[in-house]
Amino acid sequence: MIPFKSLLTVDKASGTPVFIQLSDQLTQLIRSGTLPVGQRLPGTRQLARLLGLNRQTIVAAYDEATAQGWLESQAGSGTFVARHLPEVTPQLLTAVTAAPPAESFAAMGQVTPGYAFDTRPFLSRPVLTNTGGLRLDDGFPDIRLAPLAELGRAYRSYFRWGNPQQHFGYGDTRGHLLLREQLSIYLNETRGLRTTVDNILITRGSIMGLHLASQVLLRPGDVAVTGETTWAGATMNFQKAGAVVRTVPVDAHGIDVDALATLAEQMPIRLVAVTPHHHYPTTVTLRPDRRVRLLQLAEQVGFAILEDDYDYDFHYLSRPILPLASADRQGMVVYVGSMTKSVAPAFRIGYVVAPASLIDELARLRRIIDRQGDTMLEFAVGQLFKTGDLKRHFRKALRTYHTRRDHFCQVLTQELSDSIQFDKPDGGLAVWATADPSIDLTATSNRAAQHGLYFSNGLTHNPPGHTLNGTRLGFASSTEDELERSVLILKKAISVR
Amino acid sequence: MIPFKSLLTVDKASGTPVFIQLSDQLTQLIRSGTLPVGQRLPGTRQLARLLGLNRQTIVAAYDEATAQGWLESQAGSGTFVARHLPEVTPQLLTAVTAAPPAESFAAMGQVTPGYAFDTRPFLSRPVLTNTGGLRLDDGFPDIRLAPLAELGRAYRSYFRWGNPQQHFGYGDTRGHLLLREQLSIYLNETRGLRTTVDNILITRGSIMGLHLASQVLLRPGDVAVTGETTWAGATMNFQKAGAVVRTVPVDAHGIDVDALATLAEQMPIRLVAVTPHHHYPTTVTLRPDRRVRLLQLAEQVGFAILEDDYDYDFHYLSRPILPLASADRQGMVVYVGSMTKSVAPAFRIGYVVAPASLIDELARLRRIIDRQGDTMLEFAVGQLFKTGDLKRHFRKALRTYHTRRDHFCQVLTQELSDSIQFDKPDGGLAVWATADPSIDLTATSNRAAQHGLYFSNGLTHNPPGHTLNGTRLGFASSTEDELERSVLILKKAISVR
Repeated sequence: MIPFKSLLTVDKASGTPVFIQLSDQLTQLIRSGTLPVGQRLPGTRQLARLLGLNRQTIVAAYDEATAQGWLESQAGSGTFVARHLPEVTPQLLTAVTAAPPAESFAAMGQVTPGYAFDTRPFLSRPVLTNTGGLRLDDGFPDIRLAPLAELGRAYRSYFRWGNPQQHFGYGDTRGHLLLREQLSIYLNETRGLRTTVDNILITRGSIMGLHLASQVLLRPGDVAVTGETTWAGATMNFQKAGAVVRTVPVDAHGIDVDALATLAEQMPIRLVAVTPHHHYPTTVTLRPDRRVRLLQLAEQVGFAILEDDYDYDFHYLSRPILPLASADRQGMVVYVGSMTKSVAPAFRIGYVVAPASLIDELARLRRIIDRQGDTMLEFAVGQLFKTGDLKRHFRKALRTYHTRRDHFCQVLTQELSDSIQFDKPDGGLAVWATADPSIDLTATSNRAAQHGLYFSNGLTHNPPGHTLNGTRLGFASSTEDELERSVLILKKAISVR
Repeated sequence: MIPFKSLLTVDKASGTPVFIQLSDQLTQLIRSGTLPVGQRLPGTRQLARLLGLNRQTIVAAYDEATAQGWLESQAGSGTFVARHLPEVTPQLLTAVTAAPPAESFAAMGQVTPGYAFDTRPFLSRPVLTNTGGLRLDDGFPDIRLAPLAELGRAYRSYFRWGNPQQHFGYGDTRGHLLLREQLSIYLNETRGLRTTVDNILITRGSIMGLHLASQVLLRPGDVAVTGETTWAGATMNFQKAGAVVRTVPVDAHGIDVDALATLAEQMPIRLVAVTPHHHYPTTVTLRPDRRVRLLQLAEQVGFAILEDDYDYDFHYLSRPILPLASADRQGMVVYVGSMTKSVAPAFRIGYVVAPASLIDELARLRRIIDRQGDTMLEFAVGQLFKTGDLKRHFRKALRTYHTRRDHFCQVLTQELSDSIQFDKPDGGLAVWATADPSIDLTATSNRAAQHGLYFSNGLTHNPPGHTLNGTRLGFASSTEDELERSVLILKKAISVR
C-alpha cells in the first residue's frame, strides 16, 4: 500500500497552484520509481479525502499528469501510471551524487575540428522574413506581438544611468548579472531546473550555445548522434568540431532510443543531440518513457545529452513536459535555450544551462570568439523579466499562437486533406506537412512565390539519399486572415500540377 | 627628369585638402617605384610654380609625407625619398592583376583545430574597468567622452519605426547594410582602402574577426607568425585553429621583417599577424620600408597578412600612416578593425575587410557561431556615421587623448625617469613602460592597488622564457588630474621597495 498521504504534501502559501504541486510530485514519484508502471492511483474522491482537498483539485492534478504522459486513465477502472514508462530501476535515478559530476565534461577534454561546410540552400537562402507578402516560414514568431515599446523603454533607462564607465565598459563574458539572475528564477520556476547564476551562460541565440558546446565537448573522430531528420545548424556544428555524425530514426514519439542503445553497443558515443520538446523539423514530442531511458543510457554509456529546447515557451497541451535537464541527476545534460523565438529574432539572447565548471569552460572559449554579449540588450531583457512584461508577453503570444495553430490546421484539413498529411503539433510554431508523392514541392513552392506566398520546398530537411517530400509550414507569424489566404494560394499552386 | 607636372594633379572641388591629395600621390609614386629611394624632390618654390599652387601647400604636403616616413629632409640640401625604403622592384608592386586573386584565400582551404588554452591571468582576471578608483589600464577609451546621448537617440528612432517584421527579424550575417555602407565610405576616405559593402563583414569586436579569419585560413600544423611580444587573444586563436605559432623579434620599428624572410626560407608560412600601426603591446609603428618589404614577401611566399588595426583612429603625428591593406594589390591582406576602442567596449562593433569571396566564407562560418550581429546596435552606429556625430566624437577624443598623452608622459618623466623607461607613443591609448630590473612589477602593482590604483604587472606580455619587466599604462581613460594622482601612487609604490 503506497502511503500517498505522506508522499504528497501541498503548500497553499506557495505561488504554484495546488494541482500543479500535486502533479509535479506524482511525476517525481514516477521518475524515482516509487510509483511503478501500471500502478493504480487512488480514486479522486478518495485522495481528496485523504489530503483534505477539494476533489476538483485532484481531478485537475490527474489531468495535468495525464496530459504530460505520466498517467493514463482506463475507462471504468481508474487512473494508472502510464504503461509506456519502462520499469524504472530506482537505484539509477535516485542514486544522486552529492556533488554534480560536472567534471566529467571537463575530463572529456578540449576542443577540435576539421569542418566540411556544405552548400545547402539553408545557408545561402536570402532572408525571407523581411520580404513583404505572405509566408509560411520555418516557425518564426510574430514580431508584431513583441513587447517593443517596453524593450525600447528599458534601453532608454540604461542610457540614462549614472556612471557610463560602469555601464558601457567590458563586462562578464557569461552575461549581464541581472539577466542571469532573472533567467535562473524563470527557469527554476517554469522548467523544474535547479540553477544558480553560475550555471548560466548567456549566448547570442541558441546557435552560439550549440557551437560552444560542440567545440568544448567534441574531439575529431568522436561520434555525435542526431535524429535522422534534424536541424542543419546542429549537424554543421558537430562536423565543424570534427565529429562523425550518426543518426537514429525519428517516429511519432521522437528519436528511437532503442536504436540509440543498439548504436551505443557498436561504437563509443560522445554526444546525443535532441530537441525533445518539439523535434525539429517534425514537431513530435519525445515520449516520457523514452526520456527516462535516454537519461539512463547517458549515465550508463557516458555520453552527453545536448538538449536544444529553443521553443519551450510554446506548447498548447495543458503544461509542457519538463525538459530532460530537469530530471538530470548525474550532470549529463547540457541544456540550450533561446529567446529569439519567444521575442523576436533580432533580440539575440540564447543561453546554456550546465554545471558551473562547464559554463566556465564555455565562457573561456567564448572569450576568444566574441568577448561578451550585448550589454544593453541583456540588461533590457533582464529588466523585462523583472517587471513581468516578458511573462505577460509569453502568455499573450501563447494564446495567439494556440488560436492560429487551431485555425491553420482546420483550414489545412478543409482545403488540402487530399494532398498533404500532417499531425496537429502539440507545440512549437510550425506544422510539419508531407505532400502526396505526386506533388513536387519545389515546383509548388516556386508557383506559390509567384502568387506572393513564400514557403520552403523542404529539401533541406531530407536526410542524405532520402526524400521526405515534407516541409515546415509556420503558422505563428501570420494572422488568421493571412493564414487563410496562404492556404488558398498553396491550394492553387498544388492544383496546377 | 621626373615629370612632376603630369604625375601630380589636384582636384580643388574634392573634399580632400590639396596638400593631402599631393602627399597621397607622392606616397603612391614612391610605393610604385616611380620615385626611387634617395630621389631628390623639387624645391617647394619650384614645385609650387610648376603646379600653379601656393608654396605653403607644397610645404604642407612635404611635411605630411615626411611625418609618414616616406620623405626625409636633409638640412641645406632639400627633400628626398626616405632612405629606409628599400629599392622597390616596381614590377612587384605595379603588376596588379585585374581581378583580385581573392580566390587564393578560398584555395587555402577549410578550417581546423586542436586548441590549448592556457590559464594566463589574461583570461581569468576580473574585469577591472568597472571598479572604482584610479587605473592605468591596457589602453581603454574614456567612456565619459562617448556619444551616448546620440547613440541612445539612434536606438530610440529604430524602435519607433514602421513595420517591426522588417526591423527585428533575421538579418544579413554580414551586418546591417547602413553600417556597411557608412563604414565603406569612412574607410575609403580615411584609410586609403578601396572597399564596397561586399568587402566588409561587421563582427562583434576585432576578436571575432581574428577568430573567423584564423578558422578559415589556418589548418592544423600551419605556421602562423606573430611578433615576439603580441596580443594573447591572437595567439590563442591561432592555437585554437591548430596552427604552430612562431615568433620574430620586435624592435623600435615594429616586427623584424628580415627575420621573417629568413624564417620563410626555413618553413612554409601561412599567416603573419601584425598590428603595424601601433604594435601591441609596445606601441611602436611599423616603418614604411618594412611595410613594403612585408607586402612583397607575402606575395612572393604566398602567406596571408592579418592586419589588426584596432586603434587606427588614435594617432598623434600629423596623419596616421595608411594601413598595409591600402597598398595591397594582390589580395594578401585581411584587415581587421574595431570600434570598441573608438566608442566604448560595450558597443561591440568590429569589422573585417577582405575580398568579397573571403568575406562570404567568413560569413558562412559566422552563421553557425553567431547567426548575425546586433541589428539595433549596428543601425545606431551606422546612423551616427551618417549624421557625422561619430566623426565629431573621433576628433574630440583624439584631441583629448593627445593632451592626456603629453601630460602623462611629462609627469612620468618628471616623477619616474630614474626607475622606468618609455618612449612617447606616436599613437594608441597606452604607454609601454619598462621598469628598472630592481623593480618587481608584481609587488609594485599589488602595493599600488592598496592605494587605489590598478595597473597590470605586465606578466601577460612576457614571451615564453623571457622577462620584459614591462607593462602598458593606459592614459586615455583618465583625466589629467587622475593621471597625476596615478603617477604619484605609482611613484610611492615603487619607492617602497
